[in-house]
Amino acid sequence: MVLQQTFSIRTEGRGTYEITREVRRRVRESGLELGTCHLFVHHTSASLVLCENADPSVRRDLEAFMARLVPDGDPLFAHTDEGPDDMPAHLRAILTKVDLTIPISRGECRLGTWQGIYLYEHRTQAHQRQITLTLNGE
Amino acid sequence: MVLQQTFSIRTEGRGTYEITREVRRRVRESGLELGTCHLFVHHTSASLVLCENADPSVRRDLEAFMARLVPDGDPLFAHTDEGPDDMPAHLRAILTKVDLTIPISRGECRLGTWQGIYLYEHRTQAHQRQITLTLNGE
Amino acid sequence: MVLQQTFSIRTEGRGTYEITREVRRRVRESGLELGTCHLFVHHTSASLVLCENADPSVRRDLEAFMARLVPDGDPLFAHTDEGPDDMPAHLRAILTKVDLTIPISRGECRLGTWQGIYLYEHRTQAHQRQITLTLNGE
Repeated sequence: MVLQQTFSIRTEGRGTYEITREVRRRVRESGLELGTCHLFVHHTSASLVLCENADPSVRRDLEAFMARLVPDGDPLFAHTDEGPDDMPAHLRAILTKVDLTIPISRGECRLGTWQGIYLYEHRTQAHQRQITLTLNGE
Repeated sequence: MVLQQTFSIRTEGRGTYEITREVRRRVRESGLELGTCHLFVHHTSASLVLCENADPSVRRDLEAFMARLVPDGDPLFAHTDEGPDDMPAHLRAILTKVDLTIPISRGECRLGTWQGIYLYEHRTQAHQRQITLTLNGE
Repeated sequence: MVLQQTFSIRTEGRGTYEITREVRRRVRESGLELGTCHLFVHHTSASLVLCENADPSVRRDLEAFMARLVPDGDPLFAHTDEGPDDMPAHLRAILTKVDLTIPISRGECRLGTWQGIYLYEHRTQAHQRQITLTLNGE
């Protein structure tokens, strides 16, 4: 049994957007009992992370760390067509990845207690982001 | 054919713990001949890496590099509830990822000669870590 | 339905090598309509990245960034048997990952408009790299 859906998430610029509930609901409604849930972002400047979901300071620290690791406007970068956050957004997406696979059992996403699924927008401006979810199992 | 098992690994604090034999054995005993083996750690401060398995200095260098890249006690971090390794553990897990998929053929994990599968514990203290293995194929 | 193929790519040393066309062709010829395409590199010093495919300066900036993040010949590293790029190659592969899963629908890889699939060679010398593609779906 294979099921696939594409949905879109509106971001308000750089930062993490929780999609755990959205993903859980889609898995539940699919009727799939056992297998995997694959998520894929169709962009090169947004990504998917599994992050601690209890204390919002974790996601603020994540953003502070990424901003220091891949500085906007770094003179190292030649690719600056769309502004100082253009190339950093591509690098952040490569370092944090656009694909993510989660186990499903008893019809539910099997996340750990503190694991939340986040769409990570790396551009400073708002964007519409497409995500495809593919369920594979029985 | 879908098969899923959850097992736990006891870590003795920060460092890499080889689970290649454990994973290979579970794949072999499953009877699955062709497909994929998906591994998932149910935590936000431990992760999975494929790393060179011949020279232990590679894993020591990996740890030295990660310790420099994401320093414990960095004043950048606000999330320090559980100590100076708390936020660094989350960041290391995000950078090295909690999910990993490996091809299976002829009933075996198809790893390269020098590839070992490691659970990477990022907290300094010992922990019990849950890993779910999902096999998908025929 | 599960299909698996292994193919090899000759690299000319450090840098990114586009394999999008190769992967698209193999998916198309497989006859699989809906599911996932899993790619896996059987090495610890080469990896797979999804990267912007329009402006080559993005991949030059990616290489410049990785070279600064993980410097060749860094005195931190003990594992230098095969030269100053040996340990950095392992770290770059761990940070950018050897596995990648892409959704398939209507018999095609469902990549975003600007997403290209690249084999990322991290050693300075030329290598032959093995990649296994596993298709799972219907």
